[in-house]
Amino acid sequence: MAENVAQKLIRSHLESGELTPGNELGIRIDQTLTQDATGTLVMLELEALGLDRIRTDLSVQYVDHNLLQTDEKNPEDHEFLRSAAARFGLWFSPAGNGVSHPVHQSRFGKPGTTLIGSDSHTCAAGALGMLAIGVGGLEIAMAMAGEPLFISAPQIMGVELTGTLPDWVSAKDVILEMLRRHGVKGGVGKIIEYHGDGLRNLTAMDRHVIANMGAELGATATVFPADDAVRDYLEAVDRGEDFTRIEADEGAEYDLTDSIDLSQLEPLIAAPSSPGNVTPVREVAGEDVFQVVVGSSANPGLRDFAVVAETLADRQIDQQISLDINPTSREVLADLIAGGWLTSLVASGARIHQSGCMGCIGMGQAPAVGRNSLRTMPRNFPGRSGTDEDSVWLCSPETAAAAALTGKITDPRDLDMDYPEVRLPEKFSANRKMLVPPLEPEEARNVELVKGTNISTLPNFDPLPDDIDLEILLKVGDNVSTDEIMPAGSRVLPYRSNIPKISEFVYIQVDGTYATRAADHDGGHAIVGGENYGQGSSREHAVIAPRYLGLRVVVAKSLARIHWQNLANFGVLALEFTDDSDYESLSQGDVLEFRGLRDELGAGMTITAEAAGRKFEFRHGLSPRQVEMVLAGGRIAQRAANLS
Amino acid sequence: MAENVAQKLIRSHLESGELTPGNELGIRIDQTLTQDATGTLVMLELEALGLDRIRTDLSVQYVDHNLLQTDEKNPEDHEFLRSAAARFGLWFSPAGNGVSHPVHQSRFGKPGTTLIGSDSHTCAAGALGMLAIGVGGLEIAMAMAGEPLFISAPQIMGVELTGTLPDWVSAKDVILEMLRRHGVKGGVGKIIEYHGDGLRNLTAMDRHVIANMGAELGATATVFPADDAVRDYLEAVDRGEDFTRIEADEGAEYDLTDSIDLSQLEPLIAAPSSPGNVTPVREVAGEDVFQVVVGSSANPGLRDFAVVAETLADRQIDQQISLDINPTSREVLADLIAGGWLTSLVASGARIHQSGCMGCIGMGQAPAVGRNSLRTMPRNFPGRSGTDEDSVWLCSPETAAAAALTGKITDPRDLDMDYPEVRLPEKFSANRKMLVPPLEPEEARNVELVKGTNISTLPNFDPLPDDIDLEILLKVGDNVSTDEIMPAGSRVLPYRSNIPKISEFVYIQVDGTYATRAADHDGGHAIVGGENYGQGSSREHAVIAPRYLGLRVVVAKSLARIHWQNLANFGVLALEFTDDSDYESLSQGDVLEFRGLRDELGAGMTITAEAAGRKFEFRHGLSPRQVEMVLAGGRIAQRAANLS
Repeated sequence: MAENVAQKLIRSHLESGELTPGNELGIRIDQTLTQDATGTLVMLELEALGLDRIRTDLSVQYVDHNLLQTDEKNPEDHEFLRSAAARFGLWFSPAGNGVSHPVHQSRFGKPGTTLIGSDSHTCAAGALGMLAIGVGGLEIAMAMAGEPLFISAPQIMGVELTGTLPDWVSAKDVILEMLRRHGVKGGVGKIIEYHGDGLRNLTAMDRHVIANMGAELGATATVFPADDAVRDYLEAVDRGEDFTRIEADEGAEYDLTDSIDLSQLEPLIAAPSSPGNVTPVREVAGEDVFQVVVGSSANPGLRDFAVVAETLADRQIDQQISLDINPTSREVLADLIAGGWLTSLVASGARIHQSGCMGCIGMGQAPAVGRNSLRTMPRNFPGRSGTDEDSVWLCSPETAAAAALTGKITDPRDLDMDYPEVRLPEKFSANRKMLVPPLEPEEARNVELVKGTNISTLPNFDPLPDDIDLEILLKVGDNVSTDEIMPAGSRVLPYRSNIPKISEFVYIQVDGTYATRAADHDGGHAIVGGENYGQGSSREHAVIAPRYLGLRVVVAKSLARIHWQNLANFGVLALEFTDDSDYESLSQGDVLEFRGLRDELGAGMTITAEAAGRKFEFRHGLSPRQVEMVLAGGRIAQRAANLS
Repeated sequence: MAENVAQKLIRSHLESGELTPGNELGIRIDQTLTQDATGTLVMLELEALGLDRIRTDLSVQYVDHNLLQTDEKNPEDHEFLRSAAARFGLWFSPAGNGVSHPVHQSRFGKPGTTLIGSDSHTCAAGALGMLAIGVGGLEIAMAMAGEPLFISAPQIMGVELTGTLPDWVSAKDVILEMLRRHGVKGGVGKIIEYHGDGLRNLTAMDRHVIANMGAELGATATVFPADDAVRDYLEAVDRGEDFTRIEADEGAEYDLTDSIDLSQLEPLIAAPSSPGNVTPVREVAGEDVFQVVVGSSANPGLRDFAVVAETLADRQIDQQISLDINPTSREVLADLIAGGWLTSLVASGARIHQSGCMGCIGMGQAPAVGRNSLRTMPRNFPGRSGTDEDSVWLCSPETAAAAALTGKITDPRDLDMDYPEVRLPEKFSANRKMLVPPLEPEEARNVELVKGTNISTLPNFDPLPDDIDLEILLKVGDNVSTDEIMPAGSRVLPYRSNIPKISEFVYIQVDGTYATRAADHDGGHAIVGGENYGQGSSREHAVIAPRYLGLRVVVAKSLARIHWQNLANFGVLALEFTDDSDYESLSQGDVLEFRGLRDELGAGMTITAEAAGRKFEFRHGLSPRQVEMVLAGGRIAQRAANLS
């Protein structure tokens, strides 16, 4: 049978299940990546599992999120991660090497392999013809322990690209067009595969931009073929030997299809405060701008900075603008210097920041309240910038550069200048010296984990009782993101290794009373959500911390994939209304009464509960394997119970 | 009469008083600088004074301290300062231009002029033959309003430099030698003037290093002659026309003298946690190092970074080291790129941070608890790095580079390599485009101050009653710095424009109960201190915030100059024991009873109080002008009372 790229990648790694949408698949994992904000927990999970050495081909621990180091907590996390990487046999990429996704692509990405990462933008590696999926930390720990990744078999959506991008329009506008068409849950349950003649004009780094923000569509993964563009890229980063050609077979089919004529695209922008609020730049042109930020894993390539530098060369940014440049990685920084682009940026008025995730994860460079900030980043959920009432827009580097020059939202085609021609070097910088390789097993066994005072061991979680009454302590609306459940930002991120402390911040922007109410409430509680509950970042803290506060059941109209998985992993029962209109019938303060949970979960895909004097029906979507896991209190509790 | 440089600078600006040690002098001020951490208060003071336009030749508002922007507070301060600079006729240097002292030297420094700044390292400008003094913010506001600066006439200490520095020894070792000899209060009440043949081998930026850390000696100012080295410097920064030669007359004399043979110096280092703990590097060599930080106003010159880059070129830093490079300014960054030095630093493993004060003021890059951090910065007071139990050492760029390579404290002479010869460019970068010039008066009058939610107006302070009973709410030891009284760091600095909020942090590291005890205590209170009370940073928040909590009197064995001035400015009576052994007789909880304060302060330099059943005698050191000011409740209250 003629296969598409996604099918080839899945079949070559399939350990269990049938590739029919809805089935649970077990997929062999070749590589993992973890970053520091999620990685400390993963390393604590490895410790809790008693793992001696990882069983993946390659796992890398990056430090790219918590770099501000306003006190000892960040550097002590870094030391812990360095010691854990040494202990368990991982590569370690210390602070300063840059953002995990582009560094991983450049140093370790390999067509035909599978990668999971405890970061929702791990999907960026799909640019190289990899099956790359962002998952919760515990999935990573299990993959390192040699277990397959279990996912619900996705639909495969083929998007045919034709034509060539016009001047001043770039890869970011392609993914913004996808978001304009499909919205922030248009990709849920799907792998998006790009194909067609238009690919010829998109480099591997352009594809990284598109694959990265597949996360914003809610897609399980985004895949591109491993074609000449990927070969050229691997040669440019000095790893031509890692190239394997992987393309869709002639006549391959897709479950769903769409197509984009690149030549018809125009500069687009996502207005505050959702990546789905996409509109043509011209429709909002003229609004005052106070900050422009260029960087992050959504526009990480040398070209993305170089085009800004060339647009600003020999010009001065507008006086009211703070132009914050966030070079993706040590290597991009080196190439920006070598190409003369950093000189142009500095002279034009930019501020140059350390390589890392920075404001993309709310770690610095927050904007003033209500002042427009244009960013090449992937997300603009409310408050994610660090400022509660922020006004953050997402756009291409070209649109960002235009605003920096004019001080207003500006379609870059309306600048009175020619589109700069960026000439990239034939070879990119390739510096592996600051990547710390794994120790030999003998040596690794003698490494002691270095735990600072802020690193707490994982709490133990109880099995889920068969009969349980749960008061609804919080009811929220549609599209609640994990940023709202468990905020990031400089005030909260430093506690990522300390569950009791970080739980004080759960839902703090939505309902400042929830955390204390939940902590004071005995016997567990439930939360009711709307559509697409738990979208966004993969952080499992958004489950562990509320679970620590007593959360046992989430009921929502629909659940985002990674969050749903995380809930199951830590023993929280995640349910969807069979009738969405029931959402209106449940209120904060109502008590959901579940009876005979084990039998109900075992018997079929729906379960019932009583509340407010009537009966409700919910879907659970759990495989038999997952039912056992949830009832046991989660995956770690289950493994511990099996061992005892 | 033959005059030294200090005498020439003072006499040419003397508006009142006699240049005899101890007299109060009124000095005309040509230039001022303010930075963002102290400047918001200065601008609020200008507003409170009702000033229409500044009367100095030139005043510059810098933004260099609060650059992390973890939420809206920093960017809103920046906008307020931009609007205030426009309103009152100042230059404005936005975030990204770099640290005030080196930028001021390069763009505005002018031999023969006077400069005051609301930052204790303002004294760095003495490198150009200026009289440059760090003072409290209110002194700046008054100088901008056209009033002279009042200071107690200092002794002038002449330090003769001879010989040439050996390889691997640089300007930082000269000032560390001064600190080794004289300690952190060795400069109190003195202007230190360097002279002699050894000057020929010290560039203007080398002299900046030495003048800058004159603050650590407690000196009122440090002056160098404006000689050929200063002329060369001004030509290199494209301002040759601003040069005036100022040298000591033949036969000029000094109140005190010292001399240093540069050829006899060796690499020195200040151990935790005082700049006065100076020891030869070889005596502490071999200790493990985890972080090396290069930057700050103490080693801001291109050479200081270039020598590190040349030492690390084609080498790799030790794996356990975080090498944090903090380029001083936009211009230094541009020159580091142009010289190829940034490339070497990035390749060797460095992290490159935005231009600004960073970790020097506890804004980021804090070390882990107890892990040695070597810094080229000027201060290592406990906790100033952002980490309470830090272990920070101060050293030259050469010693910093050696530790980065070996992972241990290392005398750079023990590296197996030749001392790199740094070839500086003939012209430094000179970019004035990102400096915003003052508006014309007409236009300035129409500017509205932009006040974010975190910017509160100044509190009003009462007159000091004639009879007052004050409980001693806190007793502290010797050398308490303003960092201990009013901590900086990322948690506190964002509240620099909000006195009620920032007062919650007063003395928090010394006695976490003080702020609430003081706020709850009616009728005012006193604090007892040891030697050199209030050393360090010039921050007037270290007076205004405790005054807001009810502080009326400080009694200490001795008081640091700037802090003493700030206390008087805000109506706190600062007293010294006439008999130091009385310090032992006063305890926390004792009540000091003052009677007839006005008469006593008017009658002479000592006053009395009863406490613990006996009489105590104190010196006050206030001029008649200052007595009136303290009794009125401070300088703003006095001016307000005079107007009403």
